[in-house]
Order: sequence, then C-alpha cells, then structure tokens
Amino acid sequence: MADPIVYGFPRSTFVNIVRLILTHKDVPYGFHNLEPVMGQREHLALHPFNRVPILRHGDFIVYETSAIASYVDETFEGPKLTPHDVRARARMNQWISAVNAYYYPYMIHHVTHERVVFPELGIASDEKVVAHALPKVELALGMVERELEHGENYLLGSELSIADFYLLPSTFAFSLTEEGRAMYPKYPSFCRWRERMENLPATLKLRAIMPPREPILHAREWAKSHRPKY
Amino acid sequence: MADPIVYGFPRSTFVNIVRLILTHKDVPYGFHNLEPVMGQREHLALHPFNRVPILRHGDFIVYETSAIASYVDETFEGPKLTPHDVRARARMNQWISAVNAYYYPYMIHHVTHERVVFPELGIASDEKVVAHALPKVELALGMVERELEHGENYLLGSELSIADFYLLPSTFAFSLTEEGRAMYPKYPSFCRWRERMENLPATLKLRAIMPPREPILHAREWAKSHRPKY
Repeated sequence: MADPIVYGFPRSTFVNIVRLILTHKDVPYGFHNLEPVMGQREHLALHPFNRVPILRHGDFIVYETSAIASYVDETFEGPKLTPHDVRARARMNQWISAVNAYYYPYMIHHVTHERVVFPELGIASDEKVVAHALPKVELALGMVERELEHGENYLLGSELSIADFYLLPSTFAFSLTEEGRAMYPKYPSFCRWRERMENLPATLKLRAIMPPREPILHAREWAKSHRPKY
Repeated sequence: MADPIVYGFPRSTFVNIVRLILTHKDVPYGFHNLEPVMGQREHLALHPFNRVPILRHGDFIVYETSAIASYVDETFEGPKLTPHDVRARARMNQWISAVNAYYYPYMIHHVTHERVVFPELGIASDEKVVAHALPKVELALGMVERELEHGENYLLGSELSIADFYLLPSTFAFSLTEEGRAMYPKYPSFCRWRERMENLPATLKLRAIMPPREPILHAREWAKSHRPKY
C-alpha cells in the first residue's frame, strides 16, 4: 500500500503530534500542506469540521488526532507507543483527552495565539484571553509535575507512549511566549521531561525538516471564527 | 474487586455516556452524586480540571470520558463495544473525538445550556450563543445522516460500539430544546438511529433509575466560569 499522507499545515500543534509519532516509528509518509486551501472546499472534503490533521492511508481517510495517533501506532511497524497494561492504557487515554480539553486550549488557543500567532499577522493580543488562561495553564503544568513525581523518564513511567508525543507540541509552542518562559522554571521535573523529549531523535529529525517559521496566514480567520472572548 | 463507582452528577451528558456503557455491559456499579460538592476540594481531588465523570475501580481512579469508556469496555465482561478491525476502531475513535470537540460543545454547551439549564435557574438565554451554534449543529447532524447512509443500524455499521453511546446523550439533551425539535426531522436516518438507541434495553434501564429532572444548581457557576461569548 502507498505511504500514508498527513494533511495539515506545518505549524499546527496537532499535525505535529501525528508527524512526531510517524517519525518515531520510522514510517515513511507524505505531507500535504493545506495552508493555501484552509477552510475551502478541498479542505472541508477531508475534514467537515474545518480542522487538521487528516491522515490518508490508501483508500482510508481518518481525521481527529487521537484517532490518527492510535491508528498509526496499531497499523505500522516500529516501537509500540501504546502500553499493553489496561490501566496504563487508560492513563494514556486520559492524557490524550486532557491535552485536547485543557492543555492545548489554554496554552495554545488562548496564549500562544494571542502572543505569537496574532501579532505575527499584525493583530493585537487580547489581554483578557491571556489573563483568563494563565491560572489554568499553571494548574495543568502542576499536574504534569505531580505525575512526573514517579521519577521515571516519561509521563506513564519508563516507557515512552502516545501521551508524551501528545503533550510535547503544546509545550513547545507555549515556550515561545514570555509567559511560558517565566512559568516553566517553576516545574523542574516538567522541564527535564521536555528537554528529554525535545532531544529524542524523532523530535530532532522533525524539527530539521520543518520550513522556516512564517506567519500562519489563514489564522486571520481564527480571529473572527473561534477566538475566545471574556 | 469492589464494583466500580461513577462520580458525577445525574444530568451530565458525559456521565451518562459512561453509565450507558456500564449498563449495556451489565456491570454492577455505584453512583456517587457530586452535585453538593462540585468544584470543591472533594471533587477537585478526583478531577483536577473540575469536570465529570470520574471512575474509581478498586484503587484505580481515572477521569476523562473517553478513557473511562475504553477502560470499562476492556476490563469488564459483557458485549464488546470496540471493533476488532483497526480501521473500524479508528472510525470509532474519530467519533469519540468529534463528539468531544464538535457535537457536545455546540449541541449542549451552547444550545441546551442556554435553552434549558440556564432558564431553569432563572438565567436568561444568550441568543448570540444559540445563533452561533445552530449552523454548526446542522453541519454535525448532516455528518451523522451521511455516515448512516450505509443503511446499517449503528454509526459504524451493523455492530453497536462506544461511538453510538458517545453520541446518544448529546442528542437526547438537544432534543429537549425547541431548536432540536425543529431540526431533527430533517435528518431521517439520524432519527431512526436515535429511536433505535433510545429503545435499547440499556437506555431504558438507565432512564428508569434516573431521578426526576431538577435544576442543575452548580450550573449557576458555569454562567461565570465557562459560558461562551460572541
């Protein structure tokens, strides 16, 4: 069967979760940049809810990062990222859902968009959005710190899992904000985890092929379509 | 090991996903009503992000509905709700994530809260929130209708799965709104699916033990903490 193809745009947090997992498993894949057609018919034919990433594998198309991540881990060779133990697996699924529901929304959708993505487009930050998010980000990072009290290398313990790759891209993008840089040193176990994750061969390999950072042009629409208001 | 315990409040859409799955699998379980302590220390000790449900099984505690649903299906006897085929399983996971990200937020968080939950507490509806959501609910129901074009009984085909139980409670609560009643007849395959799901023994059994509908008292806080604004 043909190599899988990831559809999305290069700086998407969720696209990079999928690309990290494919890279870690050493699965050859194509990347289709949807930036020029985001929100248009070609994109909506792949994802009716106007999000990324989407994975195509032969005649099978699936969207939603959590579904793609599990599909990739189950379908392709390479190191398994899903624990065999049912409780460890439940803990991994809890992380996936928590990143979707609490980590990404407050770290990225609220802060990184206001501090990095919108200013790059000449759109001023909304301070109320940032202020609403910061205590929630502190709570979330406190949870990571507490989970890492086990003293092992990865979120679930000694074994790397989808949970680690799910959390990593949100923590990378938040590190680009002054709020992230001020906040991170308060969470030393988290910082060690992040350094370990940023230096994995898969992370280094993906970063090396990423295009230079450019403004996310279609994010101009986000300011109208789904920017938080307080 | 002791029976599992579900922590939450009775009218929670996500709590009812978990209760339906436990009931369908005929797993005896306890229900611990957190309504009197929602958002307080006792609740936050179980779920740091202030949500429900939480499942306790012996000394194991897990939160996030998707993680609980899979844990229950994998751990307990009874009919399996996870397909063996990897692509069907990916499709199921896509449904779970889509309900979390698009169906529940627009059907329930936007419309049912404004039309039912807030008015029961004497809080007026915000028409802008409802108006923002309705086209998104139409899109989402259109997707269900299209998926059911396969002519089979359930979302993934002939086999009932977690996907069906994940979607059902959102469609129940939205049916209590005038917008839901006006919209549903446009989606006949969806209506047949819903009737089939509402008449499953598990659904009837859970409905029969639900307490009478009362205002959700702690939802007064929602109007301050996480009501959408447009």
